[in-house]
Amino acid sequence: MLNTFKALFTSDEILRGNFGVEREGLRVGVKGELSRNKHPKVFGNKIMNPYITTDFSESQLELITPVFNTSKEVYDFLNALYDIVALEIGDEYIWPESMPCIIPDDREIPIATFCKCKQGEEARAYREELLRKYGGKIQLISGIHYNFSLDDDVLNKLYENSSKKEDFKTFKDNLYLKIVRNYLRYRWLLIYLLGSTGVVHSSYKGECLKKLDNISQGAYSCEGIVSYRNSDCGYGNRVTLFADYTSTREYVNSLKRFINDGLIQSPKEFYSSVRPKGKNPNKILESLLNEGIQYLEYRSIDINPFSKGGISLEDLEFLELFNLYLLFKEESNYKDWQIDGLENQKNIARNGGLDIELIRDGEKVSKVQWGLEILNEIRDINHILNLGKGELIDAQIEKIKDYKKTNTYRFIELVKEKGYIDSHLDLSKKYKKEAYVKRFNLKGFEDMELSTQILMKEAIKRGIKFEVLDRDDNFISLEKNGKLEYIKQATKTSVDNYATVLAMNNKVVTKKILDKKDVRVPKGEEFTSIDESIRRIEKYVNLPVVIKPKSTNFGLGISIFPDGGGKEELTKALDFAFSKDNTVLIEEFIKGKEFRFLVIGDKVSGILHRVPANVKGDGKHTIEELIEIKNKDSLRGKGYKTPLEKIEIDTSVLLYLKNHNRDIYTVLKEGEEVFLRENSNISTGGDSIDFTDVIPNRFKEIAIKSAKSIGAKICGVDMVIEDYTDERSNYGIIELNFNPAIHIHSYPYEGKERNVAKDILNLLGFKESQCD
Amino acid sequence: MLNTFKALFTSDEILRGNFGVEREGLRVGVKGELSRNKHPKVFGNKIMNPYITTDFSESQLELITPVFNTSKEVYDFLNALYDIVALEIGDEYIWPESMPCIIPDDREIPIATFCKCKQGEEARAYREELLRKYGGKIQLISGIHYNFSLDDDVLNKLYENSSKKEDFKTFKDNLYLKIVRNYLRYRWLLIYLLGSTGVVHSSYKGECLKKLDNISQGAYSCEGIVSYRNSDCGYGNRVTLFADYTSTREYVNSLKRFINDGLIQSPKEFYSSVRPKGKNPNKILESLLNEGIQYLEYRSIDINPFSKGGISLEDLEFLELFNLYLLFKEESNYKDWQIDGLENQKNIARNGGLDIELIRDGEKVSKVQWGLEILNEIRDINHILNLGKGELIDAQIEKIKDYKKTNTYRFIELVKEKGYIDSHLDLSKKYKKEAYVKRFNLKGFEDMELSTQILMKEAIKRGIKFEVLDRDDNFISLEKNGKLEYIKQATKTSVDNYATVLAMNNKVVTKKILDKKDVRVPKGEEFTSIDESIRRIEKYVNLPVVIKPKSTNFGLGISIFPDGGGKEELTKALDFAFSKDNTVLIEEFIKGKEFRFLVIGDKVSGILHRVPANVKGDGKHTIEELIEIKNKDSLRGKGYKTPLEKIEIDTSVLLYLKNHNRDIYTVLKEGEEVFLRENSNISTGGDSIDFTDVIPNRFKEIAIKSAKSIGAKICGVDMVIEDYTDERSNYGIIELNFNPAIHIHSYPYEGKERNVAKDILNLLGFKESQCD
Repeated sequence: MLNTFKALFTSDEILRGNFGVEREGLRVGVKGELSRNKHPKVFGNKIMNPYITTDFSESQLELITPVFNTSKEVYDFLNALYDIVALEIGDEYIWPESMPCIIPDDREIPIATFCKCKQGEEARAYREELLRKYGGKIQLISGIHYNFSLDDDVLNKLYENSSKKEDFKTFKDNLYLKIVRNYLRYRWLLIYLLGSTGVVHSSYKGECLKKLDNISQGAYSCEGIVSYRNSDCGYGNRVTLFADYTSTREYVNSLKRFINDGLIQSPKEFYSSVRPKGKNPNKILESLLNEGIQYLEYRSIDINPFSKGGISLEDLEFLELFNLYLLFKEESNYKDWQIDGLENQKNIARNGGLDIELIRDGEKVSKVQWGLEILNEIRDINHILNLGKGELIDAQIEKIKDYKKTNTYRFIELVKEKGYIDSHLDLSKKYKKEAYVKRFNLKGFEDMELSTQILMKEAIKRGIKFEVLDRDDNFISLEKNGKLEYIKQATKTSVDNYATVLAMNNKVVTKKILDKKDVRVPKGEEFTSIDESIRRIEKYVNLPVVIKPKSTNFGLGISIFPDGGGKEELTKALDFAFSKDNTVLIEEFIKGKEFRFLVIGDKVSGILHRVPANVKGDGKHTIEELIEIKNKDSLRGKGYKTPLEKIEIDTSVLLYLKNHNRDIYTVLKEGEEVFLRENSNISTGGDSIDFTDVIPNRFKEIAIKSAKSIGAKICGVDMVIEDYTDERSNYGIIELNFNPAIHIHSYPYEGKERNVAKDILNLLGFKESQCD
Repeated sequence: MLNTFKALFTSDEILRGNFGVEREGLRVGVKGELSRNKHPKVFGNKIMNPYITTDFSESQLELITPVFNTSKEVYDFLNALYDIVALEIGDEYIWPESMPCIIPDDREIPIATFCKCKQGEEARAYREELLRKYGGKIQLISGIHYNFSLDDDVLNKLYENSSKKEDFKTFKDNLYLKIVRNYLRYRWLLIYLLGSTGVVHSSYKGECLKKLDNISQGAYSCEGIVSYRNSDCGYGNRVTLFADYTSTREYVNSLKRFINDGLIQSPKEFYSSVRPKGKNPNKILESLLNEGIQYLEYRSIDINPFSKGGISLEDLEFLELFNLYLLFKEESNYKDWQIDGLENQKNIARNGGLDIELIRDGEKVSKVQWGLEILNEIRDINHILNLGKGELIDAQIEKIKDYKKTNTYRFIELVKEKGYIDSHLDLSKKYKKEAYVKRFNLKGFEDMELSTQILMKEAIKRGIKFEVLDRDDNFISLEKNGKLEYIKQATKTSVDNYATVLAMNNKVVTKKILDKKDVRVPKGEEFTSIDESIRRIEKYVNLPVVIKPKSTNFGLGISIFPDGGGKEELTKALDFAFSKDNTVLIEEFIKGKEFRFLVIGDKVSGILHRVPANVKGDGKHTIEELIEIKNKDSLRGKGYKTPLEKIEIDTSVLLYLKNHNRDIYTVLKEGEEVFLRENSNISTGGDSIDFTDVIPNRFKEIAIKSAKSIGAKICGVDMVIEDYTDERSNYGIIELNFNPAIHIHSYPYEGKERNVAKDILNLLGFKESQCD
């Protein structure tokens, strides 16, 4: 098989596949106790949210990644889900490990609740039955479920190059079943390498604790432990069940037998450490028979407390190699491989840290020796197929050689030092802080525009399925309950019609339309001949006007007369403007502050005022130092990847300071504010300041009326207000923007963060509701 | 006043004003008889169409221009309306003169019918009353009504510079009333200069014919005639009525008196040759009193048979000067000016061609002397105000000096030569032909895109009010019955949502969306690394593929393998493509002919196939000559102002012919077809061929499905079909266009002209209906 792969595929193709992870995690209070709060409403109907739901308990989160083609994408998305949830659970935390937090008696464990529908009632009944049969505490053990399937092209090509004695479905099923059987044989190694459950809390099940030692406050463990979760302390059927994995039909038959014999109620109660999966999760066995195996689910992996998402990227990538090993490794004829496999699992889980022997084909073999044999074979695969993953194999070799390198050992040490609760909570707090600092980013999509990341993040939170259609273009689709929307750059959507967008994109047309609806716009005229403009100039003498080239470049050619000008001055300004462009505008000048009103549907979602880059003195630091301090804000970055930009000290800043009799070494007095540039662009370090709650309603109504006049649903209204504290103040609409950025409102420098993305999703018709 | 104008205004400002024309015209059959057909349905509800309606008779068209600021715009629009109507009345013609065609007895004259509504019933009743009171024949006299008002800025400035003893409304009314009084004094000159009714038909009223001579077949006239329409043969109240024009109040009072005295039924039955007009046409007198005079209507102007629209541009521009003359000319204190004015009108109308004397302030003055005095004063105005209209004043001076230069005389000569019917019909036929030749243009808007002109023309036809919001941008608005639509470039409208447009504008996204909906698109992959593309190339060996740079320039870097290629060939093609761009596409090649399906809403409005520039031999002419002949088609022009472009003999044509062993001097055999270029662009002389009725339904359904899949309402679907005669043929969608040109379907080189504009208007919700 290895040679077939070498002959048929490039390394790119070999490493292509379909991967996904489900990660459970308990919500806990500030003292590490299981939360009694409801699953946050913002995540919507649990059954309909494909990313964020609950497992057995109401307080047991389940984070589910979509299927990706690379481990990196899975890893990033899992972390993104963590970040999203961590910031929506108030002062609660996500427990960072598989073994539970402080848990109450069974009767007080909140079982997950669901919407009143058939599916919801079934889900609830299933959980009640589990509680009755297995007890509640064991259900709170959380884990990683890893899903994977081979690339379709690879499968097809393998089949094309096979003897074709069997049909494609059978061929594919047999490949997957070989992996399953080998998984059962070699899972002990995975448990050892990825195991992370070496401590349990005193509130956990008595029969488990009995045999353990108290190692620190509330913490119990034993020597050589690798994974309580995969040991007798963990989850499993009450009777040991061995399914038949020789063919899909036999597998299905064996499960049917278990059900007929009353050993389990349904296929999903068969707690094997690996599951072949079909297309239809509601008709598991029929689906396996009809369409064959679609993918495999590995269930032995503990949550890695040292990795925010619960599994490290290195481990995910190692799994890709492990999958290849399972696919390539020839099977022996040894009959009792399932019994040995289970025996080895239990043994490694409980005693893996000790110098133990395992059973291979009925014969004893040292854990280290066998482990090294497997890992060396994996290294050969890596070498022969040129996969370039040597380093991460070496890291796993280190672990098999030295128990102290395992997550389990490292975590036990931590617990010994800090006690059970703090060792866990400190990690959770760290992860939550990380999530907050990068709250404007969607992990794995940081190359996309911020506004798009923010919208996608909000969509994922609400269980709206997304797809990136063109990454460079920031083009995505969102789908929920059969509703499908295409969105570019967060605010270019289907709710706005094309004619309206084009009207907004044309200042002349915009002004005509607003003027007709009695919305104030700067009045003006356009001239294509200097002679005609001079003939008409008298009309504008002594009035506040702006004279400007139609297309302005960095404000070149603009003259502003806030208090009006004489004929001669205006004529000079016309000359100047015509030296820059063939078309010149004379426009009324409206005094005041400029605000960006973000209108979404029938409401103003945010009002923002931009201020040029500036610093505020403290009587101690120089301007240069103050800039450095200001730049440390995590909202500031470089290259538009953050809501604000770092202030750069360039020639224009130096010149500006010089013109104002300062330089970067000037020490500013306490409270002294100094601007650093003329322009207020965020892109050159300007500040965004939220004014949403400050601006009088009248101006909000004018902004909404402006948007409605032109037919816009999502619209950035740029308004100048002479005195924004006075409701009756003079104002003027400068421009309507059809692609307003949302990140400036979501994460302003100063003022309240506005959840604009939510408003957009609501406008698009993705309604918030617990049951939909 | 002249000096005030000189002091206050530039010549641009003086010539600015508001102008509009209404032109009546009888519909006639091929023998010159009054049509008995209904007013064409396409013009919709007569009461709601602001541009095209009927007057007294169902067969009496009334063409109404909107208000424009220049005479040129009025002139062009009037001609545009003529063109529109001329092509919608089948084999009928528009009678080119004020005096009627062959008319039947009163009982058989079809009175205009209207929708069943209050307004419609009133309109009908009014006409029946006119028939009873004045007879039908006289009602068929058609004319030009000229509306004008002064520019608002000019009026305001005049008031600002006045003594301000009266309020602005009174000031304005008094200005207009001065013009009215002077109009009544000097109208004789206008009648002489613009008069054109020197012949009547034998079917016209007996009492008029009695005094006339038969000058040719069916034609009656008399010596020195200028305007029967303005003579006793024309229209007028049965009793001579002189209104009081000293103030608006007195004017209104005098009309009320006429009504009280039973002399007229309503203000509109007062047939003065000039009317002061208010805002509300339904409450004429109240409106005049409340808001004052808004504009003036001149009613003495005959239709000029030598001008398609009914009035020449020169005469419209002369009227501007005449208006100034009336405004500036000081009035004498002579009491009986109204009696003299009417006397002079009758005299000039009937005897203007003779050497007659008129009465001025009770004293006789020779027609020529007085006329020259007036025209010389106008020449002074032109000179002093620097208006640059000397030439057209000179032309009018020629007319006053020489009767033979008048339209009336020239037309009488024509009638003498051809007879009454042919002299008229020949002109109508000529105008209709002109309308047809330029059927794709909207007169006055030829600088705009053809597609926009076509849409505007169709809108005007249907009585949809248009406004050009940005001419360079081809941005218009359409409005009817309170429904307002913004449209750019004819097909960028409100029915398409922005996200859909953006999806169509992104080929990758388009393909993903279509593919999901099982619409066939060329499958393919995008590569940004030559190494990776070469690693993957095996997949494409021996398959029909295109390898191309993502951004192509004139097809550079493209390799096509219609029958597949070997690994080496494909690799070379990749090398070649990567030499042109960093991103390269490998795409399935679909064989066949490419068609543009224009989907509008739920239907395919047109299917077009484009063929490279070509000529067809006749056994006589050289290729060069054949090109010259083909270029004579009126559909062909230069610079995208016509549906097709002239074929230019450039180096690429010469090279192409050379490569095919020909040159431009080759004489082609009869029926021999020769292409002149590789590319099929219309812009380089390609032919557009309509296939709408030829393509099987299946492909139309696929085109509609493609548009619907992406959510497009107006969509150009580019489809390749392997064998378009076979419904089951293979096909592929190449591209979806969100801004499809409509002119190519409206006016193809070959095949049926498709009224796509109508479909767009329907889709926008401007429904066709007789009564709306």
